Amino acid sequence: MAQLQRITITPSQLQQQQIFLTPQQQHYLRRVLRLCEGDRLIVMDGLGKWWLAEIAGEQAQVLEELAVETELPIAITLMIALPKGSGFDDVVRSCTEMGVASVAPILSDRTLLNPSPQKLERWRRIAAEAAEQSERAFVPTILEPVTFSHAVTNVTATHSYICEARGEYDHLKNAITQISGEIAIAIGPEGGWTDRELEEAIACSFQPVSLGRRILRAVTAPLVALSLISAACEA
Amino acid sequence: MAQLQRITITPSQLQQQQIFLTPQQQHYLRRVLRLCEGDRLIVMDGLGKWWLAEIAGEQAQVLEELAVETELPIAITLMIALPKGSGFDDVVRSCTEMGVASVAPILSDRTLLNPSPQKLERWRRIAAEAAEQSERAFVPTILEPVTFSHAVTNVTATHSYICEARGEYDHLKNAITQISGEIAIAIGPEGGWTDRELEEAIACSFQPVSLGRRILRAVTAPLVALSLISAACEA
Repeated sequence: MAQLQRITITPSQLQQQQIFLTPQQQHYLRRVLRLCEGDRLIVMDGLGKWWLAEIAGEQAQVLEELAVETELPIAITLMIALPKGSGFDDVVRSCTEMGVASVAPILSDRTLLNPSPQKLERWRRIAAEAAEQSERAFVPTILEPVTFSHAVTNVTATHSYICEARGEYDHLKNAITQISGEIAIAIGPEGGWTDRELEEAIACSFQPVSLGRRILRAVTAPLVALSLISAACEA
Repeated sequence: MAQLQRITITPSQLQQQQIFLTPQQQHYLRRVLRLCEGDRLIVMDGLGKWWLAEIAGEQAQVLEELAVETELPIAITLMIALPKGSGFDDVVRSCTEMGVASVAPILSDRTLLNPSPQKLERWRRIAAEAAEQSERAFVPTILEPVTFSHAVTNVTATHSYICEARGEYDHLKNAITQISGEIAIAIGPEGGWTDRELEEAIACSFQPVSLGRRILRAVTAPLVALSLISAACEA
């Protein structure tokens, strides 16, 4: 159990225990995540295989294949506008149980509060505890809070969804066509996303979806979304 | 918005605004629920139509058809072993948002605590608040706590499921074949059902199902189960 960074590769990138990193991946690992020679990371092929690897020059060296019976074959990033009060503790705990890969707290038009570093530490501790209790192999990454614009323009997932209660959007369960790789799902604050945010996300290739006909609280919606995505990609 | 009892009829039971109650339904309404002449109830045809009706002799008189845009076409009864602490408040709140029709607190082998009448009142208040916030047409019924044996032997649903984390059971999402009528789903306490309970439920035609490969807390499992059932019966 370790809070390791994860990247997804195409199967052809792996040859004889060497993972050939793309220039984008090298930049991401070295510059963005600041990993150094010999640092470990998790490499996924998006098809259910995971390896522990370490940075070796422009490549990553496979150390061992990981058994991932309790992990989803898909990496889900939950982008969530911070709810008021202590509700976010429960969101982190429940979403970890449900198999989330990373949680990105979002500062949205309707949630301006920037959490303290203590809060972030607390959420990471909750994620670690919940991962252990739910017998997961890995601890989800709790990212630093970022603005909505930053989050939607920098998303790396192959499929991105934004949940919106009002409006006649496709139900998430019908929108999920993918059962491997990376998925990002954005859940709004109490009161929902503003029109501006919704438009910006759609412009960044987010697909607007519905979670059903009832109005869910900001702390309930992520659980519904994760239930549906994880069920879609598990037999 | 009212905390009314609900029954499901076959379409042929409704003729010219009169609902012909079966002997079982008459017994249930008059003896079990102790409804009297003129008392109101909700009658569902299991196909998405709901009527407000009142007891009139051996029949029920339709008063008006109800618009149920935010209600599921299915009546879900959540049978849940009472979790420790205050977790049950959150379960009632979230499950109401997700569209549950009734919640049956269960005294199981591993949860012996019998809630006080004040607790029951509190849960009913939470259900009423949550129904209003989530824009539901009806308030879920919070039933009196009963023993596990009483609950499984008296279930009236057409399909009943019992969730079990250990063992190789079918995933709930694959087990749901029904999208109308009544469904009962039983969720165990921390530590799961005992073997004895599982056997008793199976003997009462409950189908054992899995909610995925991770171990969920007793307060998370009902949310996953309800997400899957409600998504299965909503377009």
